[in-house]
Amino acid sequence: MRFVFLGTGGSAPSRERMTQALAVRYRGDVILFDCGEGTQRQLMLSSLSFMAVKTICITHFHGDHFLGLAGLVQTMQFNDRKDPLDILVPKGTKGYAETFLEIGNFKLRKFEARVHELADGERRAFDGYTITAAELAHPVPTIGFRFDEDSRAGRFDPVRAKALGVPEGPLFSRLQDGHPVDGSQGPVRPEDVMGPPRAGHSFCYLTDTGPTPRAAEISRGADVLVMEATADDALTEYANKYGHLAASQTAGVAKDAGVRELFLVHISSRYKENDPIESQARAVFPNARVPKDLQEVDVPWG
Amino acid sequence: MRFVFLGTGGSAPSRERMTQALAVRYRGDVILFDCGEGTQRQLMLSSLSFMAVKTICITHFHGDHFLGLAGLVQTMQFNDRKDPLDILVPKGTKGYAETFLEIGNFKLRKFEARVHELADGERRAFDGYTITAAELAHPVPTIGFRFDEDSRAGRFDPVRAKALGVPEGPLFSRLQDGHPVDGSQGPVRPEDVMGPPRAGHSFCYLTDTGPTPRAAEISRGADVLVMEATADDALTEYANKYGHLAASQTAGVAKDAGVRELFLVHISSRYKENDPIESQARAVFPNARVPKDLQEVDVPWG
Repeated sequence: MRFVFLGTGGSAPSRERMTQALAVRYRGDVILFDCGEGTQRQLMLSSLSFMAVKTICITHFHGDHFLGLAGLVQTMQFNDRKDPLDILVPKGTKGYAETFLEIGNFKLRKFEARVHELADGERRAFDGYTITAAELAHPVPTIGFRFDEDSRAGRFDPVRAKALGVPEGPLFSRLQDGHPVDGSQGPVRPEDVMGPPRAGHSFCYLTDTGPTPRAAEISRGADVLVMEATADDALTEYANKYGHLAASQTAGVAKDAGVRELFLVHISSRYKENDPIESQARAVFPNARVPKDLQEVDVPWG
Repeated sequence: MRFVFLGTGGSAPSRERMTQALAVRYRGDVILFDCGEGTQRQLMLSSLSFMAVKTICITHFHGDHFLGLAGLVQTMQFNDRKDPLDILVPKGTKGYAETFLEIGNFKLRKFEARVHELADGERRAFDGYTITAAELAHPVPTIGFRFDEDSRAGRFDPVRAKALGVPEGPLFSRLQDGHPVDGSQGPVRPEDVMGPPRAGHSFCYLTDTGPTPRAAEISRGADVLVMEATADDALTEYANKYGHLAASQTAGVAKDAGVRELFLVHISSRYKENDPIESQARAVFPNARVPKDLQEVDVPWG
């Protein structure tokens, strides 16, 4: 799974950072989390194809999180997209999305953009994964997202398969794909040679939010947490007042939730460098980092 | 006067070019012509201040010409702008602009954005210049813009002023500012020492358009023409069918209108280089060039 940090800035862009957008490649799909102004062009500058975007998750309708949506959809149509596009938005905001999808003289004719509202705790199943929403603490309707890969098949035991009379080759694949085969000693079922199903991988994308117990709840046990840290600790009170978090607070969520790795995003334009936000977060949760725009990270799952 | 080519791409952005936006600095003002997605960030990367933008001229409401408007306005408010902003749009499109200015949860509270519709031939006067609209040939309501500097004072003749008994120094400035002064041989009027008023400078910004006589009419005698050349000559028919021009056609307008200098913009994303569009245009009108994104040109007026 590849994380591509298209935009990591908060509230307004700067010379250093575009506003918010994260693309995640899962198998052949690209899932987009937020779509700040300029997202389509950042995708063009990345290793991913903007035409491969299958689902767009919008946390809320402040401009720095969605103003790139119309341009991306228009360029998809310009490039003759036929595949439907799913757009997940907070409860009560479908109208905002639909107004923007046909802004100005644009008409969406060549493919379908399906806007789905998600309330707190609601989930939506896709091919191979589920996305769940969690209500966050921000002045307008805002949700964070948890991605859960479907549980994966258990580990295949080739030694046991051979012992049961299955020769190495195509029959191994049949078993791994869940089909029984005939071995030289009689029928062999997948469960004879496969370990127990393994939990899928998971990550959360949580922004914008002030302090809320939902953040640690939704990200409990996730592998990766991508979360806002708009300010450094010196501005904690100010950040919280506007529904944002400071570095140590975000790191505290990662620690409470027991995730493996934390990426801090939605960095205020007042910071030209990753520090002090990165160093303050690491003091609480060592496996934390502030990505740069267009940074691509292949997550090594456990 | 400085021309800053923020975005020079047509229809959709590419790795090389953002969609359409041109900033022109005139004295302390910045005037923006079109505002494609990402304009605010390109301004941040330029020598100009996005807060200095006083007027925004939108040619039409296809996304590649206006999708950066909301983000720019939102960032202006985020930075506590107080000055009103004038937005010029084609007749019948005020609603598009106003819908976009308060898209999603955004409310414009700190300054006023005044949207003015301009019909073909209509003009609007600003401090020191006038902007005139010309209807172009495109499938949706579209106008091009002509900028005319107010006529400038005549040339000051210091030899004549001294001969009339005015000493070099503050009294020279008084005369140049249009006030009579007392010389050692009696009163001296500005018209005694100033040449006849000189015509102001002018330029046109024309995009998107297929062939139309209005293009050469509106740009007659302008110093600079910035105009679309979406395609190269091999695709002339195709370009014209969609309300666009090919290189030689655009150069032909510059030649007919008798401008001094031509900049070709709205370059299709199919072209990774300035050629063949630039070379085809130069064959018809030698003083033509395709600018790159973020290129800044100080125009040496005659």
